[in-house]
Amino acid sequence: MSKEVGPAEVTGSPALLREINCAKVFTALRGRPPQRLTELSVRTGLSRPTVAQAVTQLVEGGWAEYADEAGTDQTAAGRSRIGRPARLVRFRGRAGYVLGIDIGPHKILAVLADLNGEVVAKRRRDDQFAGSGEEVLAAVRQTITDLLGAARVRREDVWSVAVGTPGIVDKPSGAVRMAPSLPGWHGIRLAGALGRSLRCPVHVENDVNLAVIAERWRGVAVGVHTVVFVQWGARIGAGLIIGDRLHRGSGGMAGEIGYLSVFGEPDIASDEAGLGPLERLVGAAAISSAAGSRPGRPALRADRRPEELDAEAVFAAARTGDVAAAGAVDTVAQRLARGLSALLLLLDPDMVVLGGGVSAAGEPLLDAIRTHLRPLTFTEPVLALSVLGDEATALGAVRTALSDVERRVLPHAAQLPDLP
Amino acid sequence: MSKEVGPAEVTGSPALLREINCAKVFTALRGRPPQRLTELSVRTGLSRPTVAQAVTQLVEGGWAEYADEAGTDQTAAGRSRIGRPARLVRFRGRAGYVLGIDIGPHKILAVLADLNGEVVAKRRRDDQFAGSGEEVLAAVRQTITDLLGAARVRREDVWSVAVGTPGIVDKPSGAVRMAPSLPGWHGIRLAGALGRSLRCPVHVENDVNLAVIAERWRGVAVGVHTVVFVQWGARIGAGLIIGDRLHRGSGGMAGEIGYLSVFGEPDIASDEAGLGPLERLVGAAAISSAAGSRPGRPALRADRRPEELDAEAVFAAARTGDVAAAGAVDTVAQRLARGLSALLLLLDPDMVVLGGGVSAAGEPLLDAIRTHLRPLTFTEPVLALSVLGDEATALGAVRTALSDVERRVLPHAAQLPDLP
Repeated sequence: MSKEVGPAEVTGSPALLREINCAKVFTALRGRPPQRLTELSVRTGLSRPTVAQAVTQLVEGGWAEYADEAGTDQTAAGRSRIGRPARLVRFRGRAGYVLGIDIGPHKILAVLADLNGEVVAKRRRDDQFAGSGEEVLAAVRQTITDLLGAARVRREDVWSVAVGTPGIVDKPSGAVRMAPSLPGWHGIRLAGALGRSLRCPVHVENDVNLAVIAERWRGVAVGVHTVVFVQWGARIGAGLIIGDRLHRGSGGMAGEIGYLSVFGEPDIASDEAGLGPLERLVGAAAISSAAGSRPGRPALRADRRPEELDAEAVFAAARTGDVAAAGAVDTVAQRLARGLSALLLLLDPDMVVLGGGVSAAGEPLLDAIRTHLRPLTFTEPVLALSVLGDEATALGAVRTALSDVERRVLPHAAQLPDLP
Repeated sequence: MSKEVGPAEVTGSPALLREINCAKVFTALRGRPPQRLTELSVRTGLSRPTVAQAVTQLVEGGWAEYADEAGTDQTAAGRSRIGRPARLVRFRGRAGYVLGIDIGPHKILAVLADLNGEVVAKRRRDDQFAGSGEEVLAAVRQTITDLLGAARVRREDVWSVAVGTPGIVDKPSGAVRMAPSLPGWHGIRLAGALGRSLRCPVHVENDVNLAVIAERWRGVAVGVHTVVFVQWGARIGAGLIIGDRLHRGSGGMAGEIGYLSVFGEPDIASDEAGLGPLERLVGAAAISSAAGSRPGRPALRADRRPEELDAEAVFAAARTGDVAAAGAVDTVAQRLARGLSALLLLLDPDMVVLGGGVSAAGEPLLDAIRTHLRPLTFTEPVLALSVLGDEATALGAVRTALSDVERRVLPHAAQLPDLP
């Protein structure tokens, strides 16, 4: 029976098969120096003719190009060989670009990367955005224009853009909700507003969700299956990757740990600044207030909020032996541990990454948190500090834009779990 | 270039393709009456010849069989037609069987199902297991023997067994840890201990994890992507399906909500019975103690613990207007709401299902919980009562055993996300 079935009868499926093979070769080529077909065959586990077919398709699509043994051009080394030089294939990383943008209450960071995910250029603007949403949008547009100009990349060569923002991003409308840190931002439709000046898809995502994507891509959580990123600054939120996938929640509201009630406090609506119960207890403002007095505040910087500077001063004072400051650090560590214990008991993640301004206090703070966590949980959780600092969100946006490009090029293959 | 690639050169991949097609036809056949090839073609989106090929393979493998228009045998109706009757194919649901077993502190429930997932027979044994693990194991073995005997199914026709147990199941050793409700159970290797008397793989899983699988398969959460099942009885635990997949956690310890500290209580080790802070506040024992006095307890039943009977009595008294009882119900609803709010803020699930003995209090309890949740969360969560009662774990075990059979028959296809 199986002999009766010819190629014409399994329409559609061999195309999927070719796409799976293409995706494997695509993945094996990207981010690596030029390779021979034999190497690609070993790396993908595909036969050499199958690799050759996939390479042909990728070259035709503009994703890959041939090069001789020594690089792009025919060189002396190549010519001195007897016979034809071995044919090498490489990914055309600069065939296109992606943009990752972080829009925050006191900074805009735009990162331009090539299709290998290599950062080509960055542009940062520190500011306190207290005005209208339009003002912020204008600043974002200007930042993009400046960045592309400096990098000499044409607007039409940007294939995908992802933007991180505070607040909840409503799918599918794309409207931003609940972003009290950016006045005038509520209800804004970022994808539409920025899409007009760009010529490619614009994806909008919560900033902490992008930060966890970045830590798993290039940060401290590479290869970790279930990781929670806790953004700890004036406010507190978490981004969740569960079983290798971003978990947004039913209404895009997963990870709202700042609103955890773990000490018998009043309900979430009672704070004028819109801070949640846990944020009020461990946010940057609570740290300096726990210290009782304000130790000498460091020089004001545009990229820091006053309460974050106060918190930094408290941590610095604790390191130099200030008893009140050390007590305050221990108090917030204990309170945060209570909040984290809920997260650990519920999810039992492989790793928790602490990021945001307060996490700059470093390992001593982490140790204090570990001590207070011990009686609250069953396992010794893996706690780590973010290594991407305040570029995590923009880098996560870059990864998201790259994923979008992949999905458009290889729509079926991207769904297969064995591909990154 | 693509013409140069013959079938021999893409070794392995066409087999995958055939497997994908087989899996689609398998899924379309199972649990349905006999179908024509044309119907299967429409249902699967595959061409008729591809369907015919897949059916041939499934028939050869013993999974499907041909039948004429009216059923298995050539009948009068079939013969009266002009020409050949249309060929029908059906899934051989009784080609094999699976067993789902729930082992609890006061019952053993074994459910035998065919490959369609249809329940063929059940056997239940109510008991208080206070002795050794070996005693429980002997009771389980006897229950299986009785069940298979009554159903006249041979031991070798059982293709897969899944077992639900309290406690944490250590992967890959399969040892059970932390199951204080079953004395003598700690460290037991269930798969090995039961495997000797069976002739198929035995899978061991936490009971609440199986309950959430069951609610999503045949209960109140069919088609729901992210669902949390809260088991509420003498103890409290949760099973999580996140993005259509069971989430066990790094050490198999996800969902331990009974240990949430949400009111400023002491650490988790301080309770002699091993109850967690939330369990101490809202578990069955806490309900009767909140009511102050013990209303008339219903007649003792072997399948209920005394504290669960007390809780039932409190709920019954509340319904008939007992003020103290009504106050107690509201108190525990408020406390549980605090615990649930942590779960809702962190995960933002599509649905929360309440099961276990206490949930038998029904909609009035659910309404009280909703009222107390409102000020603690941002969204109106979907709360539902379990519809599978205390058979949820055993049914989840049946589904797990069926999944195991599928994985062994169609190892690659089962990984594809578009297949159930």
